[in-house]
Amino acid sequence: MTDSKEFTLYGYFRSSASWRVRLALEWKGIAYEQHSVNLAQGDQKKDEFLAINPSKKVPALVTKEHKVLTQSIAILEYIEEHYPDRPMLPKSLWHRAQVREIVQAIACDIHPLQNLGVLIKQGGGDLEKREAWAREWITQGFEGLERHLEEVSGTYCVGDNITMADFCLVPMVYNAFRYKVDMKQFPVITRINNTLLTLPEFKKTHPHNQEDCPPELRGHGV
Amino acid sequence: MTDSKEFTLYGYFRSSASWRVRLALEWKGIAYEQHSVNLAQGDQKKDEFLAINPSKKVPALVTKEHKVLTQSIAILEYIEEHYPDRPMLPKSLWHRAQVREIVQAIACDIHPLQNLGVLIKQGGGDLEKREAWAREWITQGFEGLERHLEEVSGTYCVGDNITMADFCLVPMVYNAFRYKVDMKQFPVITRINNTLLTLPEFKKTHPHNQEDCPPELRGHGV
Repeated sequence: MTDSKEFTLYGYFRSSASWRVRLALEWKGIAYEQHSVNLAQGDQKKDEFLAINPSKKVPALVTKEHKVLTQSIAILEYIEEHYPDRPMLPKSLWHRAQVREIVQAIACDIHPLQNLGVLIKQGGGDLEKREAWAREWITQGFEGLERHLEEVSGTYCVGDNITMADFCLVPMVYNAFRYKVDMKQFPVITRINNTLLTLPEFKKTHPHNQEDCPPELRGHGV
Repeated sequence: MTDSKEFTLYGYFRSSASWRVRLALEWKGIAYEQHSVNLAQGDQKKDEFLAINPSKKVPALVTKEHKVLTQSIAILEYIEEHYPDRPMLPKSLWHRAQVREIVQAIACDIHPLQNLGVLIKQGGGDLEKREAWAREWITQGFEGLERHLEEVSGTYCVGDNITMADFCLVPMVYNAFRYKVDMKQFPVITRINNTLLTLPEFKKTHPHNQEDCPPELRGHGV
């Protein structure tokens, strides 16, 4: 950890919760360095990382004073309160609630069911079974989300300003493609995702642009 | 819905996400009425409720103006911003992050894996298999949470003031007992839970004190 950077982010290129935090840091223009925790190789269970987050999960955000924050949504709220410029939440209380509703629908209802530990427990070594489980839960969650976005979206998830809901949506859609969800059912999600992916913050933080992305995926689809 | 109450809460006596919202409303002294959605009988899939929340989930909080909020944590944040008295979040940004870290660990990592839909998909009609799955995920999540609380707790989850973390902890421990988690492993969680359960807001909102609680559980353990 160098002294010049505010934070060190412990993450993994394809962890969608890590991507949410990269997006928030990039959006706010905060200097950070990254440290890769290779989940596929079990780095999260090694002593070096357990000293940072005994819950064995990424992301973990470490401050210059060596204080540790975990849980991506808690980190997003912390960044928003600490760095109010370029807000990730609207001013109106009602619209803030709409943003957080989308954030929580993704983070609590859709995402947890395809964490690696759950997939292994559910499908064992059977990759197709694991994929089918993930696909079914994402599809079910996206059905509710699509209907919600039909009501509240503008250019982005809630109206015409970028919010933390957008920082949760794009990584979730990335996972949906990975698990071969039929995205033709979700035109609003697809439209917003495609618009967001053209923005520099989304390109720079894309999993396939990260240093720990394997060469065969590097730059793919970005 | 009568005009005298601010909100109508659509919930279910043993839904832990509904209990979080009951706690927040009670804590803030907000007038609300309740409408029971019997999840075990499939009320959440009926047209009457689908018109309120097409995602088929409780809680849903409906305002006097018939606007609907879903996602318990988004609702808690909305209530906190709308009714700042008796705060559910500390003032210090760092402590607010600690509270939200606990909230998200419970709402995103521990709770989703024992939602009814997941249990049925996982264990089918085999109640013991369903229970074992829920028990394993709660135990694993509580291991990380216990260590976190060892560091940040005082009388309550974060220091000596009640926060929204406490409103998430108690319903989660209720579920842990339901799925026969061995709570002797978690002395800090147990201590905080027992302290909180003596408070009037926790007694009044307890699942076994709700009108839709079946007679055989009514008043049990409260």
